[in-house]
Amino acid sequence: MGGLTRAGAPDVGIVDDEVVLARAFLSRAAEPACIPLWGLVRACGPVEAVRRLRAGDVEDPLLQGLSRRVDAVDPHADLDAAARHGVRLVVPESDEWPHFALSALERTGEARLETFEHGKRTHADGGEDIPPLALWVRGSLDISVLSVRSVGIVGARSATAYGQRVATDLGYGLALRDFTVVSGGAYGIDVGAHRGALAAAGVTVIVSAGGVERPYPPSHRNLFAQAVERGAIVSESPVGCAPRRGRFLTRNRLIAAFATGTVIVEASARSGALNTAGHAERLERPLMALPGPVTSALSVGCHDLLKAHRCELVTGVDDVVETIGSAGDLSAALAQAADRPAAPPAAGRHRTAAAAELRGRLDELESLARAVYDGMPAQREITPEELATSCALSVLDVIRNLPTLEVAGLIEPTRDGFRRRPQ
Amino acid sequence: MGGLTRAGAPDVGIVDDEVVLARAFLSRAAEPACIPLWGLVRACGPVEAVRRLRAGDVEDPLLQGLSRRVDAVDPHADLDAAARHGVRLVVPESDEWPHFALSALERTGEARLETFEHGKRTHADGGEDIPPLALWVRGSLDISVLSVRSVGIVGARSATAYGQRVATDLGYGLALRDFTVVSGGAYGIDVGAHRGALAAAGVTVIVSAGGVERPYPPSHRNLFAQAVERGAIVSESPVGCAPRRGRFLTRNRLIAAFATGTVIVEASARSGALNTAGHAERLERPLMALPGPVTSALSVGCHDLLKAHRCELVTGVDDVVETIGSAGDLSAALAQAADRPAAPPAAGRHRTAAAAELRGRLDELESLARAVYDGMPAQREITPEELATSCALSVLDVIRNLPTLEVAGLIEPTRDGFRRRPQ
Repeated sequence: MGGLTRAGAPDVGIVDDEVVLARAFLSRAAEPACIPLWGLVRACGPVEAVRRLRAGDVEDPLLQGLSRRVDAVDPHADLDAAARHGVRLVVPESDEWPHFALSALERTGEARLETFEHGKRTHADGGEDIPPLALWVRGSLDISVLSVRSVGIVGARSATAYGQRVATDLGYGLALRDFTVVSGGAYGIDVGAHRGALAAAGVTVIVSAGGVERPYPPSHRNLFAQAVERGAIVSESPVGCAPRRGRFLTRNRLIAAFATGTVIVEASARSGALNTAGHAERLERPLMALPGPVTSALSVGCHDLLKAHRCELVTGVDDVVETIGSAGDLSAALAQAADRPAAPPAAGRHRTAAAAELRGRLDELESLARAVYDGMPAQREITPEELATSCALSVLDVIRNLPTLEVAGLIEPTRDGFRRRPQ
Repeated sequence: MGGLTRAGAPDVGIVDDEVVLARAFLSRAAEPACIPLWGLVRACGPVEAVRRLRAGDVEDPLLQGLSRRVDAVDPHADLDAAARHGVRLVVPESDEWPHFALSALERTGEARLETFEHGKRTHADGGEDIPPLALWVRGSLDISVLSVRSVGIVGARSATAYGQRVATDLGYGLALRDFTVVSGGAYGIDVGAHRGALAAAGVTVIVSAGGVERPYPPSHRNLFAQAVERGAIVSESPVGCAPRRGRFLTRNRLIAAFATGTVIVEASARSGALNTAGHAERLERPLMALPGPVTSALSVGCHDLLKAHRCELVTGVDDVVETIGSAGDLSAALAQAADRPAAPPAAGRHRTAAAAELRGRLDELESLARAVYDGMPAQREITPEELATSCALSVLDVIRNLPTLEVAGLIEPTRDGFRRRPQ
């Protein structure tokens, strides 16, 4: 990457500009959720991965096939265009990377990598649960904070009046309880959920299938503008990318990963929302569905999930909070830590402020959160899976309680898990 | 009972008139689901129980307190009045007694008897799952046949248009699949379910909280008249009894027991239908609920049951049939056996006719039904519970498959369970 200079790279704190350029390059070089590319980056790091891609020094046939595309990649141009639209690139090496939210994708990605056969076509339905290589973000709030206490609300574009009302009520009520709402930007349930959150002066995140600078559908430009002010728009694809079908499918896994739990509000029997539901299940995140009239085709997907015992039935905000696991009295403190709706400085400072206030609250932690904290080694980092073993809890219970500890300033995310914060 | 003659006793086949008179007496002597009375009858038989009650030769304070009521009982008059209204008394000693349907109440009743303390008030909510002492029946069909393949459909009196539509659709669809519909006779869900069954030329049973000669509510007299022609009206209380609150609650257990499985269509948070649901659970019968809009107060009770994982979510007839366990190809044969909608002779003859046709079908039985049959001893009777142990199946699986075997003429009910029919 010697030829790449720092010109055009936006400020991402302490991250090496070479790494930012490399990840910008990678996010353009292949479609999202490309297993061999993620495997390559995982094996040799982003900078070396770019060198090998450019040199054609790769074994995987899919990566070899990218050569023409690779030749056309200009990460400087992409980063410049991003900067012009107020878009930043968040990379795993930066403070803002949502380690906690994406830890489940790390776990499923590793498992997937073991069974992946080079040269074979991967799932056509975008069902590859691997982490993104980088995230293009437009918005005023820090995405690592936004994703700590969040609910995905997804469902049919062709939602009924009932579905839209319920989605809006959920978004509103969850925002009042200091949950970030996460969804796509589509008609129907998506927009209902976001509007509810915004009506409650809450925080909302749109995970986009195309470049974050372009509202899709275009008629939702006001919604996208509000999300930029009061949350974020996030995408794996660089500025200028159109929202293609394949990108919607890979996008769905990011909604499921960003959200602490996901609610399906209305879905027909073959709705794309069921694809998101599948991701949430594989990520072992709480999955919920709202019932509706049995006479409504738009509730068939929800009822099918419920009949198959694949999710919990929820009828409102209280059920969602109970299913996800409440952060209890710490919710107000979290709201303070996120400092919304004002524009945010870096997350680190906020976490420190919250920690100063909250450290004394260790005794007030719910017993499960306390058990999780007690199960952590004094110095070493630990993955949620190891932590589950050491605490004799389910991974889900551990994941549900980590945000409480993180917001309380008692633990901090590491590359592969968490560690206790020196007190 | 020497003073009681056979005058006025309707024809009940081979049952001793003294027994019929005794059970008519007992059904008037106390309110339904009187634990000490059932215990007394169980210990010494109905004729001796009447002698002791009349002589005041009972230890239980509740039974002693019945003395004034007992003095006024005139079973001849009750049987005469019944005969005038075309009402017959079905007793456990008769062919028509629904042994299979009531076997679960025998089991729960025995357990209850062990914990019952004389002199203590029993559950105020009518939650005593003991068998009836006798059943007053008005209707053209044999209740032991009707209850073999039946679905209870219950719910709110103040049902919404949605609930009534769904109840009617369910009743209609289940009747087309040769299920008897069982419900109360109330406004809302009850009447919707019955009307659906009748619209499909199906069979329907009203379990009444008062005397079976009086439609309640009175505006449902046409519905009650149709049920008499195309099924039955059943009650524990003699002709002339008003439908009191306590009788509704004890009545609910009979709906749950008569039905192979019970569906709650619409229920508010404190609906009486939830009482029926509790009975179905204790009787280990499949319990199902239909979801509805989360914005409807009339679906709260259903959603509460579903959230608590107390029942299966069903959206239509197919789900109900799947949950209850289909009798498969034998359904048509059952319809033939019940010979509806013509007026029925005694059930025994029908069972024999069905058996002649069906005996050769043993090979076609579903594997579970076959396993249940194979688990039965060659000669001896066996209870469903013992059968479950001998087959290594759940009691529910056994109960679900016994009707198939009974309809196929392969087994027959006994006092406490079932035995193989000599082939």
